[in-house]
Amino acid sequence: MRVLVDMDGVLTDFESGFLDRWRELYADRIFIPIEQRTTFYIADQYPQEWKESVYDIFEAPGFYRSLRPIPGGVEALRAMQATGIEVFVCSSPLTEYKNCVLEKYEWIDEHLGKDWTKNLILAKDKTVIKADFLIDDRPQVKGAEEHPSWQHILYDAPYNRGVIGKKRLDWENWRAVLPNGLPSIRQ
Amino acid sequence: MRVLVDMDGVLTDFESGFLDRWRELYADRIFIPIEQRTTFYIADQYPQEWKESVYDIFEAPGFYRSLRPIPGGVEALRAMQATGIEVFVCSSPLTEYKNCVLEKYEWIDEHLGKDWTKNLILAKDKTVIKADFLIDDRPQVKGAEEHPSWQHILYDAPYNRGVIGKKRLDWENWRAVLPNGLPSIRQ
Repeated sequence: MRVLVDMDGVLTDFESGFLDRWRELYADRIFIPIEQRTTFYIADQYPQEWKESVYDIFEAPGFYRSLRPIPGGVEALRAMQATGIEVFVCSSPLTEYKNCVLEKYEWIDEHLGKDWTKNLILAKDKTVIKADFLIDDRPQVKGAEEHPSWQHILYDAPYNRGVIGKKRLDWENWRAVLPNGLPSIRQ
Repeated sequence: MRVLVDMDGVLTDFESGFLDRWRELYADRIFIPIEQRTTFYIADQYPQEWKESVYDIFEAPGFYRSLRPIPGGVEALRAMQATGIEVFVCSSPLTEYKNCVLEKYEWIDEHLGKDWTKNLILAKDKTVIKADFLIDDRPQVKGAEEHPSWQHILYDAPYNRGVIGKKRLDWENWRAVLPNGLPSIRQ
């Protein structure tokens, strides 16, 4: 079994990383509490005139590297790997790639260890990667391949609760959601 | 049709980038002319005691970004795309990823344009990417997927001339080697 695991909003707490920084920089502006987030792209839910301030936060040096892990994610990846599941972390870099690209590698190195950087795939288009499952918080994952080989399992988040018809997972229930639960450890 | 194109030794002139730097730094040491290179990994052909000096060259800041394009490669990618072929640049970063990762994006941005950075896939394991062809100078491309979906077309290089049984391509003859030559331009 091969599983692709997205980074932002799945392994890294992108939402709180953004919100903390937003409130720090713009204490005088409104903010959207995480539980009230309804759009996949944060900029789509903030007033139009602040779009650039939103992007500036993601694109700043240090933003990606300093994101906190979503509790249980790192442990889940290690547990999957220990059972013989092939795990690849699969992340789409920003179009403004300058800071995020290296920092994604550094994040994996810091939180999972250097060996795991070998399992990191950076790709804007995840549909061309062959796997059984993709765990991703994005409501719809589209790309060049109209019929990807993987089944999309939605990593649960406030902004994707409107999506129906897909399995939904978080790092508390993943063993029950992945088909057959956790396979027995290969000797 | 989807084609994956490797970077080092296919789009970027890794060999001459290395050799120029080696001769610049170590004018007193022997060097191996490119036409006499017989191993895929440069370090394997240099005296054992110089392994670290070899690695230091690749891992230095600026090495990847400043690699010269192999003539015809950039033009071939544009021509393929213009005919409707889906082209992804697919590159395996060094385990010592610190400098090469961002520089690979910068190289694509500089030589092909920012839009092409969206078609860049960084992956140590290319076997999990679904495509019709992989153009790569590495003699054997192995990974998690025992039977990759792509056919490996060898980008011709002195160090892979011993490989038999694979199609062999360079940026002068690629139109004849890719099956059916160049498809007619889609309207």
